[in-house]
Amino acid sequence: MQRVDGGVTAPKGFRAAGVRCGIKQAGPDLMLLASDVPATAAGVFTTNAVKAAPVLLSRERIDGGTAQVVIANSGNANACTGAQGMADADRMTELVASALRLNKDEVLVASTGIIGQHLPMEKIETGIAVAVAALSFDGGDAAARAIMTTDTRPKSIAVEFETGGKSVRIGGMCKGVGMLAPNMATMLAFITTDAKITPRALRKCLARSAEISFNCVTVDGDMSTNDSAFILANGMAENPVIDGEGPDTDEFQAALDTVTVHLAREIARDGEGATKLVEICVNGAATADDARSVAITIANSPLVKTAIFGRDPNWGRVLAAAGRAGAQMDPDKTDLYFGDVRVFEQGEPTRVDAEEARRPMLADELVITVELNIGEASAKVWTCDFSYDYVKINAEYHT
Amino acid sequence: MQRVDGGVTAPKGFRAAGVRCGIKQAGPDLMLLASDVPATAAGVFTTNAVKAAPVLLSRERIDGGTAQVVIANSGNANACTGAQGMADADRMTELVASALRLNKDEVLVASTGIIGQHLPMEKIETGIAVAVAALSFDGGDAAARAIMTTDTRPKSIAVEFETGGKSVRIGGMCKGVGMLAPNMATMLAFITTDAKITPRALRKCLARSAEISFNCVTVDGDMSTNDSAFILANGMAENPVIDGEGPDTDEFQAALDTVTVHLAREIARDGEGATKLVEICVNGAATADDARSVAITIANSPLVKTAIFGRDPNWGRVLAAAGRAGAQMDPDKTDLYFGDVRVFEQGEPTRVDAEEARRPMLADELVITVELNIGEASAKVWTCDFSYDYVKINAEYHT
Repeated sequence: MQRVDGGVTAPKGFRAAGVRCGIKQAGPDLMLLASDVPATAAGVFTTNAVKAAPVLLSRERIDGGTAQVVIANSGNANACTGAQGMADADRMTELVASALRLNKDEVLVASTGIIGQHLPMEKIETGIAVAVAALSFDGGDAAARAIMTTDTRPKSIAVEFETGGKSVRIGGMCKGVGMLAPNMATMLAFITTDAKITPRALRKCLARSAEISFNCVTVDGDMSTNDSAFILANGMAENPVIDGEGPDTDEFQAALDTVTVHLAREIARDGEGATKLVEICVNGAATADDARSVAITIANSPLVKTAIFGRDPNWGRVLAAAGRAGAQMDPDKTDLYFGDVRVFEQGEPTRVDAEEARRPMLADELVITVELNIGEASAKVWTCDFSYDYVKINAEYHT
Repeated sequence: MQRVDGGVTAPKGFRAAGVRCGIKQAGPDLMLLASDVPATAAGVFTTNAVKAAPVLLSRERIDGGTAQVVIANSGNANACTGAQGMADADRMTELVASALRLNKDEVLVASTGIIGQHLPMEKIETGIAVAVAALSFDGGDAAARAIMTTDTRPKSIAVEFETGGKSVRIGGMCKGVGMLAPNMATMLAFITTDAKITPRALRKCLARSAEISFNCVTVDGDMSTNDSAFILANGMAENPVIDGEGPDTDEFQAALDTVTVHLAREIARDGEGATKLVEICVNGAATADDARSVAITIANSPLVKTAIFGRDPNWGRVLAAAGRAGAQMDPDKTDLYFGDVRVFEQGEPTRVDAEEARRPMLADELVITVELNIGEASAKVWTCDFSYDYVKINAEYHT
């Protein structure tokens, strides 16, 4: 497997565009992604009880197992917008379908941005016409930029691997920096591949991949009304069809995991106001749920996150967060590491000095490891620190 | 029932002192509270799996149902300190018992402050001698000041009521402004009363009262290793003994609730960096757990809290937080209010304009009400907003 350029337009037969239609105050805010031929499709969605209109619509459509186009806007989430919101989401897909001479059932839709306001449909209608004209086999980067909200940079990746004597590519892009929590953060992820794969296998691979990537990112514990990840597989690589279990499925899964884990880590690294990517590893837990719960609770602790921002090896806050996770834990068996520095061992602080403990906190990435020493289960989640800028961004991002 | 002065020394027979022994960089940091006679005692403690040494010790001692003295220090939590920490906590009670000619089993201990460092026992030994000499029937205010960490002001209250022809008083003080979460935040609360009451009734009244007060405060979702609330009832009011159910128990409960709810609200109002006290009311939930879960999830949402700091009526974030609480909820049945302004009604935004929605956010206290309109259960929790100063306080509060 190797990295290649092009993002979502790296796989054969995908064109994309990112244009400005005027929803955001500045910058591109409308993204169109299209396969030249009908594609197998799968998706995962927010589990929030409050789901935005585009989530409700796309979730229903993707059940059919095929899709050819994705339209997405940034700047307005079309969430909590009632019947008008559902009509607007449907209308977006209709406009795209009509311009591309497709059935609207082949069009998926996603939105991100402010909650509770109706979409400016006139701007979107004009924007869709511009986006259709701008569709390009080099459009991956422009597309990744058009889905950004408070993201500071576009996030995309593409990989290539061999299967059944054919070269197959997977490309992905995402946005999402705040209101991020496990089980799909305010995150939109769009993945393309020219692999030939059955809907059932695609669905299974995406679900597995989301579990160890998107569902392991948390910025502030909030979970969005709009989170969606789509994958479109158009089969143009002409590989022997991937289905069920076997080495080709494993290869595809590994490549997909590379794409989604990269995107997940980039989301955490670009968390609102973040100065650091933080990886929380929990090992030796009694159950997988326990491991995950401890990791997530540490990752969401504002006290831990502000200490990391202050480059303060305040391991007591990490232990206190672990202790309230509701997991089986015995402090007298627990070890705790910042980077490779052991700061707590089996119920007692180690004799490491503050300067040595602070050293791992100066780098761009920090790994915190908790060894519970009770069982065999592990979990890994990604987050970021909590800075003045997080407050600034979120206090000033006005309705 | 009426408010009276004096805090924890308002009830008959209680003396207190707050002195400086040098644990904190400045200010008083050692508190002593003593009843003239043995008292009935009860306590509630953190449910964090990582419990500080004083919690482990006091929890065991209070099981006996009596206590006469409380010693507490601020500046060092004596948490995650292993065997030495247990010995130090025990030694604190021994020093107090020896000076006051009591059995150490009659002494409770509490600590708050930095985690993972051993107590400076020489300073504490000297401080205890000073505190014993300073014990006074007017010491309530000095005591409330000596338990402060990042609190900006002392928190205390006392009330008086009649029962069985006797005048009875309850006094209380607390500290706690960060690392606060339901089920006992980093909170120390010490309550005194001259009521005559059985251990069983006292325990029951405290548990009920904590449930609707201390356990309903959340500042940042973190739960401390040290949270403790003690109540000492010395019987000097000579009322007919309170036991079981009846009007006198109800009167005592009502007075105790007044004390604990006042303290809980003061904790939220003084949350680290807070500019506002926020009350989250959830009504019409299917179950009490659902109501509480929705209220707590909203109260802990960094996105909601930063919006409140920015005085932004961003009700979409409130709905999104409610939606991820895991409770039964249907947006199409839900109403949402900021103060008395309805901003969302049965699945649709209302036509209220932004200025009108912003008005309730300008006051010192904000009430956010969610009407789920599914069942009959309600919950109320208190929190505060999330400001630059929260980050500053917690990034700079170095180990």
